[in-house]
Amino acid sequence: MTKPLLLKNLRLMGAAKTDVLIEDGRIARIASEVTPSGDVTVEDCDGALVLPGLIDAHAHLDKTLWGMPWHPHQQGKSLQQMIDTERHLRHELDMDAERQSSRQVALALSKGTTAIRSHVDIDTDHGLTLFEGVAATRDRYAEVMQIEIVAFPQSGMMIRPGTFELMDQALRDGAEIVGGLDPCGIDRDPKGQLDAVFGLAEKHGKQIDIHLHEPGEMGAFSLEMILDRTEALAMQGKVTVSHAFCLGMNDQARVAALLDRIAALDVSLATTAPASRPVPSVAACRERGIAICAGNDGIRDTWTPYGNACMLERAMLVGLRNNFRADVEVAWALDTCTTEGARVMGLEGYGLTESSRADLVLVDVEAVSEAITLRPPRRLVISGGQIVARDGVAEATWQTA
Amino acid sequence: MTKPLLLKNLRLMGAAKTDVLIEDGRIARIASEVTPSGDVTVEDCDGALVLPGLIDAHAHLDKTLWGMPWHPHQQGKSLQQMIDTERHLRHELDMDAERQSSRQVALALSKGTTAIRSHVDIDTDHGLTLFEGVAATRDRYAEVMQIEIVAFPQSGMMIRPGTFELMDQALRDGAEIVGGLDPCGIDRDPKGQLDAVFGLAEKHGKQIDIHLHEPGEMGAFSLEMILDRTEALAMQGKVTVSHAFCLGMNDQARVAALLDRIAALDVSLATTAPASRPVPSVAACRERGIAICAGNDGIRDTWTPYGNACMLERAMLVGLRNNFRADVEVAWALDTCTTEGARVMGLEGYGLTESSRADLVLVDVEAVSEAITLRPPRRLVISGGQIVARDGVAEATWQTA
Repeated sequence: MTKPLLLKNLRLMGAAKTDVLIEDGRIARIASEVTPSGDVTVEDCDGALVLPGLIDAHAHLDKTLWGMPWHPHQQGKSLQQMIDTERHLRHELDMDAERQSSRQVALALSKGTTAIRSHVDIDTDHGLTLFEGVAATRDRYAEVMQIEIVAFPQSGMMIRPGTFELMDQALRDGAEIVGGLDPCGIDRDPKGQLDAVFGLAEKHGKQIDIHLHEPGEMGAFSLEMILDRTEALAMQGKVTVSHAFCLGMNDQARVAALLDRIAALDVSLATTAPASRPVPSVAACRERGIAICAGNDGIRDTWTPYGNACMLERAMLVGLRNNFRADVEVAWALDTCTTEGARVMGLEGYGLTESSRADLVLVDVEAVSEAITLRPPRRLVISGGQIVARDGVAEATWQTA
Repeated sequence: MTKPLLLKNLRLMGAAKTDVLIEDGRIARIASEVTPSGDVTVEDCDGALVLPGLIDAHAHLDKTLWGMPWHPHQQGKSLQQMIDTERHLRHELDMDAERQSSRQVALALSKGTTAIRSHVDIDTDHGLTLFEGVAATRDRYAEVMQIEIVAFPQSGMMIRPGTFELMDQALRDGAEIVGGLDPCGIDRDPKGQLDAVFGLAEKHGKQIDIHLHEPGEMGAFSLEMILDRTEALAMQGKVTVSHAFCLGMNDQARVAALLDRIAALDVSLATTAPASRPVPSVAACRERGIAICAGNDGIRDTWTPYGNACMLERAMLVGLRNNFRADVEVAWALDTCTTEGARVMGLEGYGLTESSRADLVLVDVEAVSEAITLRPPRRLVISGGQIVARDGVAEATWQTA
């Protein structure tokens, strides 16, 4: 049991200074002044601004090359080329999934992330080894990082026989979510793949999160097939569509109708807000009450050299992509990396109120917008009531080799 | 006269370790080992990677609110609203142009920028006061920051009588470049405005840099009028078009023809690679030999809350916007913030070779791509042979109030 922790002089989301008492991993008290009593650790926070724990709701913990020698990016740009290259490089480069995923988790903690939904590749080359590696990391970091694993058929399910059975096994072994990927573009069999994905969800009583990169009308077609099954199987509130580039297409009336249906079926969206692809509009989702969360996607992997696990940087990119400038809009960008992520992941007790789980990120800035535009090293990160990082560096307990 | 400076153990653009001797503001010698002789300052650089000085080729030094209390962003999003709001807020907020521009220059130095092309507003509300403020900063920092001032009619020239005369005066008083802005969208008189802009350039023997936000066919029309005048007045190599969003339009054949003509007339482009607007393709420009440089545009001003003067961050945004992933492509993104900026600004002696001006940025990373994706605090920044920043902080001489 950790000692109670009393944080003095902090500004929750930029509000007036208060003290915050943390006990048993929860926010026990918020008041203008809390007097320490008994054996309590006291931290003066000098008026630091507090955000709730950041949430990376679309990650790939098994893919990162973080901490390994710089790998010159080499593959072609088609999705299929990137998939194939990665599957081969995993062997060549000795990308141990447990080691690499714990490196990324430690890095993410240092940046203030306290929950991650990670897709993990399931394919017939690697079997369940990547899943097992990330599951070991999930267990090791369970106290301070809430990790959900999506069993993700990155190399395709219909085009690679044996993958379905591995997915089934991963879900039996504790993967929390059923993944899917471009039912037309990669699997070339939208009916077959989506029936399989929804079948696995029904069988295991689990939620779904499908990568949908397909652009324009092809993506809209796949999306409609996902929505059809969500409705027919009463999966409202249990399906996430990641990327959904088709919702960035130019036909505004078509997009509006799709969004209306997504709202009606309580389907959620995950975005990385890429600058080079069309994307769903965060404002259009908010107007309809659609949950739209954000993720860093792969960081420094065989797909992309970019990324550092910082969800405040992702909030900036969401803001820039959506042309959010006013403070209220920049706060929407932050929401995709905080409250909307918690909503999609269904995190219990998320927030900066009394009795919430104590996940707090302290930043020395004046305003919430400034936290996103400046992104200074996190002064203090608290997860599940424990101090896990200070001045941008993870505490020794949580560092990895 | 500064003492000679001997830098030991650094990797120019990631190449093998060398020593670099700097004398009289120039790179005097590059060799695998240089032995110190005489009165020389020696710095061991531990194998740091060296980039040439970063170049912000599209800035607005008179606009930033950096160092002032956080200003909640307030105006509407149309260009005209942003222009009007800013003009009023300059008075309300006491945005002293000399103070604010020197704050931004000191910040930019700390991030490794050694040259800036800054547009400065010329309007009938402020007369030449903003120009005079930025000119004072330009003079103060002349040793370590090469600043070019564009006399920029931000509020319009044809729609605000008296602006033309102020532009004329600023150019007489030492503004280096004639600016212009959306001849259709803002000035509603493309012939009138462009004749005036080119007339000023001819009269003063100066170059031109025109903001062209106009999208699609309207922008292409204005661009053609700019190209017509460039050709008729033999201004090849002396005209820059900033933003040029029209070159991001979907009609690929139309864009290709415009780019071909731009190449033939040696017109250069400046981009900020915004995620929410169409942009010219860096690769398409490179293919044709068109100079395309990058800038941070306004940072933390009444237009936008984003920005921190870091041109490595801009290189990342250029890379993300252009979907650059391979190391060679990420290097193209960096080029827009280094060599291409030098080409557009016509900087003498730019580069990392013997006898070049000694503008060096040291970063503790393994590869050039990593400098852009990670952007750690600059280990050392050298400008004109002087150490101007260390560990991300400007040296005391160059700091401002």
